[in-house]
Amino acid sequence: MSAAGIDHGTPEPPYYAVIFTAQRTPGDEGYGAMAERMVELARTQPGFLGLESVRGADGLGITVSYWRDEQSIARWKAQAEHRVAQARGLRAWYSDYELRVARVERAYARRDRS
Amino acid sequence: MSAAGIDHGTPEPPYYAVIFTAQRTPGDEGYGAMAERMVELARTQPGFLGLESVRGADGLGITVSYWRDEQSIARWKAQAEHRVAQARGLRAWYSDYELRVARVERAYARRDRS
Repeated sequence: MSAAGIDHGTPEPPYYAVIFTAQRTPGDEGYGAMAERMVELARTQPGFLGLESVRGADGLGITVSYWRDEQSIARWKAQAEHRVAQARGLRAWYSDYELRVARVERAYARRDRS
Repeated sequence: MSAAGIDHGTPEPPYYAVIFTAQRTPGDEGYGAMAERMVELARTQPGFLGLESVRGADGLGITVSYWRDEQSIARWKAQAEHRVAQARGLRAWYSDYELRVARVERAYARRDRS
């Protein structure tokens, strides 16, 4: 997905996190455009709270999206799978991945930020 | 922290994740050596289950460490804070960060991996 920085905008816990750790295959294969569209689509979803995403030079990436509740994740999953299936599919873009759904219980930020 | 790839070695949920999203300050300031030592120290801790870490070219990084239970996280936090305080402190290394503790409830991997 496209770069997205530290997200201080999430509400007080509890809320949910989808942690997606993935290794990109070489070449674009339509990935760049699709990833941008997926992030834009996520931002319009009910219950979407935020997104943080980093990819290293070796193609390894971690994207964490934040959601109000399990229902929001389920709705997003159905939409995202449909879009991805219409395109190339996860297997064209990622040689390996692990996806975890977690309930955020506590959060701390650097205290002197403005 | 030093690079660490997709971790398929975590057990069946539930377990815990510490999601640390942070922006590095410019320059090393002892960070590289300390980060390596911290990862090595984490790996020896009771209840440590795994680690995934990515840093982008702009210095934004996401590190997710996985732990058996809250007690393991609390023990690790006390040790890590002590070590970091003895060195330069988080404020020397990170201009901004957010840390979240979450309970992993479900996990999925790419199914055709060996």
